[in-house]
Amino acid sequence: MSFIDTQQQPILILDIQRCKRNIKRMAGRAEKADTIFRPHFKTHQSKTVGRWFHEIGVTGITVSSVSMAQYFADDGWNDITIAFPFHYQLIPGLQKLENRSNLRLFINSKNDLDLLEHALANSFKFYIEIDPDYGRSGIKWNNTELIQNIITYSKKLNKPHFHGFYIHDGRTYQSNSEKEIRDAINPVLDILVDLKKQFPEAVISLGDTPSASKSDRLYLLDEMTPGNFVFYDYMQVQIGSCSLNDVAMFAVLPVGQTFPNADRTIVHGGAVHLSKEYLVNKGEKNFGQVINYSLENSISEHKELFLTSLSQEHGTLNGLPTNSDGFVWVCPIHSCLTANLYHYYHSPKGEIIEKRVLS
Amino acid sequence: MSFIDTQQQPILILDIQRCKRNIKRMAGRAEKADTIFRPHFKTHQSKTVGRWFHEIGVTGITVSSVSMAQYFADDGWNDITIAFPFHYQLIPGLQKLENRSNLRLFINSKNDLDLLEHALANSFKFYIEIDPDYGRSGIKWNNTELIQNIITYSKKLNKPHFHGFYIHDGRTYQSNSEKEIRDAINPVLDILVDLKKQFPEAVISLGDTPSASKSDRLYLLDEMTPGNFVFYDYMQVQIGSCSLNDVAMFAVLPVGQTFPNADRTIVHGGAVHLSKEYLVNKGEKNFGQVINYSLENSISEHKELFLTSLSQEHGTLNGLPTNSDGFVWVCPIHSCLTANLYHYYHSPKGEIIEKRVLS
Repeated sequence: MSFIDTQQQPILILDIQRCKRNIKRMAGRAEKADTIFRPHFKTHQSKTVGRWFHEIGVTGITVSSVSMAQYFADDGWNDITIAFPFHYQLIPGLQKLENRSNLRLFINSKNDLDLLEHALANSFKFYIEIDPDYGRSGIKWNNTELIQNIITYSKKLNKPHFHGFYIHDGRTYQSNSEKEIRDAINPVLDILVDLKKQFPEAVISLGDTPSASKSDRLYLLDEMTPGNFVFYDYMQVQIGSCSLNDVAMFAVLPVGQTFPNADRTIVHGGAVHLSKEYLVNKGEKNFGQVINYSLENSISEHKELFLTSLSQEHGTLNGLPTNSDGFVWVCPIHSCLTANLYHYYHSPKGEIIEKRVLS
Repeated sequence: MSFIDTQQQPILILDIQRCKRNIKRMAGRAEKADTIFRPHFKTHQSKTVGRWFHEIGVTGITVSSVSMAQYFADDGWNDITIAFPFHYQLIPGLQKLENRSNLRLFINSKNDLDLLEHALANSFKFYIEIDPDYGRSGIKWNNTELIQNIITYSKKLNKPHFHGFYIHDGRTYQSNSEKEIRDAINPVLDILVDLKKQFPEAVISLGDTPSASKSDRLYLLDEMTPGNFVFYDYMQVQIGSCSLNDVAMFAVLPVGQTFPNADRTIVHGGAVHLSKEYLVNKGEKNFGQVINYSLENSISEHKELFLTSLSQEHGTLNGLPTNSDGFVWVCPIHSCLTANLYHYYHSPKGEIIEKRVLS
């Protein structure tokens, strides 16, 4: 990949083949489970990558902000779930957006419904986000009184149409094997199935990449909305969601300084190039795993070689990579946060793949 | 600040008055110590903020990448230190830059000097970065043989001119009081002074904000290059570099969801709005401290209210802020990384203050 030799600063390589393979595999899992695939686009944030989903038949997507919805609506997506609690500040953005796209919103109260009934011109679908004791957003799974109240109230209004329940449970990220992922998500699936029994009109929807990748009970779901799987990352490898050879996005970092005793290497690649997400590896923080990249063959890792600390632009590797040719390839810990830090991706051939810049 | 009520997503407020006060105070400390002030511009990354330095007489600046140097050269800065180890990949960028700006580079080897002697058209100054056993970049403080070799070799060449020694020692960031900052930096100052005795032609230069803010021995230095002080942040408050009332940049985050039992609040403000930098507060991670902002009066904090976890766009506060009016003001943990995540700042009056976007 000779174009890399001319790079003057950190870049991201997006392996188009691996990325498309991830998309097809996940679409296949959804199809096999007879579950609608509404992928989350927060990880790649790229119209180009979005089109790869469209090519295989995806028509509805999930995003995490109104501005991200606007970016993808600009590319023709017209069925968008905004997977963040609705709050009144979003109204002006939603008013612009509803002329271009069918909206699905997350509603937590009757007051939310009143605001939207008056503010929006068109009807919209809404999810009630369920908190399965994960402790982030949503309504607690056993608060069926509030859930019933919201659904009942919505039927008195014209614009809101109750669509179903959505859960994102980040506790699957604590897993270290396929079995642990399944054990973590099974009680959450049970919660959704139980809610569907109580509210038979409801569609049930689940969002995290580990369970979308490894659960054997996806057939219970009506929709699945994973996002990270499009690239995966080193955290997902550790969780057991994928193998290293499935990862489709890497940072390529110029070597800044080497040392005679080879105890460390300074690369141009800091917190503004990777994010400060880390894993703990034998008691040491790992901010990025050094790998051997290959387009055709398997990707392998230098198990003992990783970024042990990051400052704004400096990364410190705990050794000297061999045959680096002036650049170190790093598998990011959390691809969503790393991708967010760049203006664009490079394909392995050096083509520019456009993306959204920041939020 | 009524313009805030209309914000649809997280924004950064740059308090111009506090920022200019920080700039003047630090320039005053440099003047009192008879030390040249060459501020690092990596924190604000803004031409507008850069001009506030120019207005009080600053003519030389420090940056952490060639692309950052290009951004500021575009605004007329023509005396720029690139405080990152020189590596060959930078040559094309430096060739463009040297026509517009006098360069100061960090050199670690005779080979670096050879490369630059041939690649550049103009003469340039260089620092030898010294590692005072901090363990990041630079040449170890007691490797005087290598230091001497590089200096001696440079005299045989036409373009490089040895300027002096530079240290950034991040260990001052482990401090929790003015005294601890001084105790941490004193041995480092001693190393610089000792090097100057051995190499009397050398200028000695120091970079970190805690010691620039609180050392009582800055008079030993020839130059100082702090950066973070322009905004400060909650980490610097904890270190003892400043008071909360000196912090000049805040994130304003829309409230996304509140809960009946007030045990937490979900804000629109995640890792892509704050970075994942955190402090540990009574065993709990603090990703951002809730404050009461005031333009004229002192800034105060809600000591017990902070962001305990961040996902990509969600932030979880450990309680319910009173009188939030739909927005929560947060003092960032690490302003350099937070500022890097935005397209621009807002002044307290709502004016847009431009900045560089990403690297």
